[in-house]
Amino acid sequence: MKLSDLPTPCLVLDRTVLARNIDRMAQAVGRLGVALRPHMKTAKSIDVARMVLANHAAPLSGITVSTLAEAEYFAAHGITDILYAVGITPHKLDQVAKLNAAGAEVKVVTDDLDMARAIAAHPGRHHALIEIDCGEMRGGIPPGDPQLEAIGAALGDRLLGIMTHAGHSYAGRTIAEMADIAEAERNAALAAARRLRAAGMACPMVSVGSSPTALHARALGGVTETRPGVYMFGDLFQAEIATVEPDGIAVTVLASVIGRRPAERRIVIDAGGMALSKDRATESAPHDFKFGLVLDQDGRRTLGNSLVARANQEHGVVDLDTTIDFRIGDRVRVAPNHTCMTSAAHDRYYVVDGGDEVVAVWPRIGGW
Amino acid sequence: MKLSDLPTPCLVLDRTVLARNIDRMAQAVGRLGVALRPHMKTAKSIDVARMVLANHAAPLSGITVSTLAEAEYFAAHGITDILYAVGITPHKLDQVAKLNAAGAEVKVVTDDLDMARAIAAHPGRHHALIEIDCGEMRGGIPPGDPQLEAIGAALGDRLLGIMTHAGHSYAGRTIAEMADIAEAERNAALAAARRLRAAGMACPMVSVGSSPTALHARALGGVTETRPGVYMFGDLFQAEIATVEPDGIAVTVLASVIGRRPAERRIVIDAGGMALSKDRATESAPHDFKFGLVLDQDGRRTLGNSLVARANQEHGVVDLDTTIDFRIGDRVRVAPNHTCMTSAAHDRYYVVDGGDEVVAVWPRIGGW
Repeated sequence: MKLSDLPTPCLVLDRTVLARNIDRMAQAVGRLGVALRPHMKTAKSIDVARMVLANHAAPLSGITVSTLAEAEYFAAHGITDILYAVGITPHKLDQVAKLNAAGAEVKVVTDDLDMARAIAAHPGRHHALIEIDCGEMRGGIPPGDPQLEAIGAALGDRLLGIMTHAGHSYAGRTIAEMADIAEAERNAALAAARRLRAAGMACPMVSVGSSPTALHARALGGVTETRPGVYMFGDLFQAEIATVEPDGIAVTVLASVIGRRPAERRIVIDAGGMALSKDRATESAPHDFKFGLVLDQDGRRTLGNSLVARANQEHGVVDLDTTIDFRIGDRVRVAPNHTCMTSAAHDRYYVVDGGDEVVAVWPRIGGW
Repeated sequence: MKLSDLPTPCLVLDRTVLARNIDRMAQAVGRLGVALRPHMKTAKSIDVARMVLANHAAPLSGITVSTLAEAEYFAAHGITDILYAVGITPHKLDQVAKLNAAGAEVKVVTDDLDMARAIAAHPGRHHALIEIDCGEMRGGIPPGDPQLEAIGAALGDRLLGIMTHAGHSYAGRTIAEMADIAEAERNAALAAARRLRAAGMACPMVSVGSSPTALHARALGGVTETRPGVYMFGDLFQAEIATVEPDGIAVTVLASVIGRRPAERRIVIDAGGMALSKDRATESAPHDFKFGLVLDQDGRRTLGNSLVARANQEHGVVDLDTTIDFRIGDRVRVAPNHTCMTSAAHDRYYVVDGGDEVVAVWPRIGGW
């Protein structure tokens, strides 16, 4: 099967780029001397997970997930050590307990005293990490929060350690800025771990990480693991902030030309908001790619700065930066702004190894 | 089953609001004396389609779809008269032919001479409409385009008529503006139809429509059908432009509180970009609702202007406009910016009749 045989729109995954991205991160994390707990929220695919886990340039401590659907899926495929990195609620404890009773070891996170008590009281005997806010202003308590020891004490022997996520590293625009944020991320986690230990609590896990901070950290002493994810696939935004190489975007959307206005240098493609997502991550990047950069059917940047300027439900309106005279049915590929959101719109990857031969079709999961 | 039993995030569909929206549009279209060909791109559910088709306040001419996956799904459920309202490509003709051979009557659209020839030459004997651009600047040729007759002639006995879509009506901000755009939409379609007829071609179908123009048109003489869709569910943007009533938003996302910062009047919920979409439709509306308006668990507007200010993958960061002290696990509902995009993130509707009892679970489809 060739790319030209595929229905459009669909998602193309270049395995050679993926392998390069996987190795680059593993090498970086290996040099830092910490374990890698890759975040599977972007890939949501056991086939991708197997490639990540087969690379031993960094020691591996398990995987990270963003939904219990992912936890269930990866556990069913034999990956047991799973960190569910989104704050747990009372309702979700039963589902985690069920997974753990079936052989998984799903670790949960909380930043709340009442929730810590609910975890400790649950018959499921969950293990939990306390979430620390290192500057992202999303989940977690600050490392100096007076409730930290009380939360740790409430968890009692359910306490596994500390986790934090420097999501604000995506606002960094230079490698030095990201390295500084990585340092702040580490310091926040270590400060919290020290307080728990000073209060007599064991704190074996100190888990940090985002793709920018995992790749650009200067040192991670005291940290036990890091949890990058989006680095596997890359996207226009990640390339803008140097988290992936300019040629490190592994996932693109294959689309067909469904309309042409040569006089206005405009085409319409069958990849709109549904196939690309409406994510506008690059709006705040040095270069704004609107809803995506249009590549030729081989995935090469031969069409200049041709962008998906508008994304309606199933129509992508492309402002062309080329004089190529497209015909109806011609194929292009679109590099996404934000690969997590774009990939989520599709239920499978059509896998290529750089060329146009489809070497595999990998399912991916969604939902919750 | 109660809403409080459901896993979060999930999609809640209030059937009483849906029925009201369906009836309001059917009454409006019925008064205009044209047929309704409801667009199923928003609902993607046979259960919703059946409710729409059961209302006879307007005559019905069939349904509209935005993907061949929708065409296949609705045809499999016995709805045969289907307009696939996205420009067809050579690749997709075989799939349409297969559906038609199995009993469907899928009509295709094109605005391209080469494509018209390909349609006429295909053994599938497709029926096609010529797409006219009435000002949206997306698909279609202008009604005065010199190629119109040639495209019609190339289609020959495959020509069914004219279709146009005033997608730019969503930029209207008053009912008078939308009525003016509806008039322009009608005039563009009629001008094209007149030219084809003057050239001796039959042009039985003149298909127009979007939710704003279908609802607000002053008259549709000469038009045979209109194709609104998003009116069924409504959303914050539609309410802003008066296409649905303020209490006409039928679909909301049920979410759980996973983080709380009472001092900062902020909560974090488990509905982020994946559950809400990243659509920012209201960015250009009179009131900007960021990534969604937060309602109480009963779907009432009791939380003031509490908005999802940030939407990460599985985290929604809410700026509260209330002093309510939420606890971890409490439930809220989020009214979406753009119901088509938000609904697409989910694979089912949990149906309620105004209350908190889940009276049905309706599957919905996605993909292409």
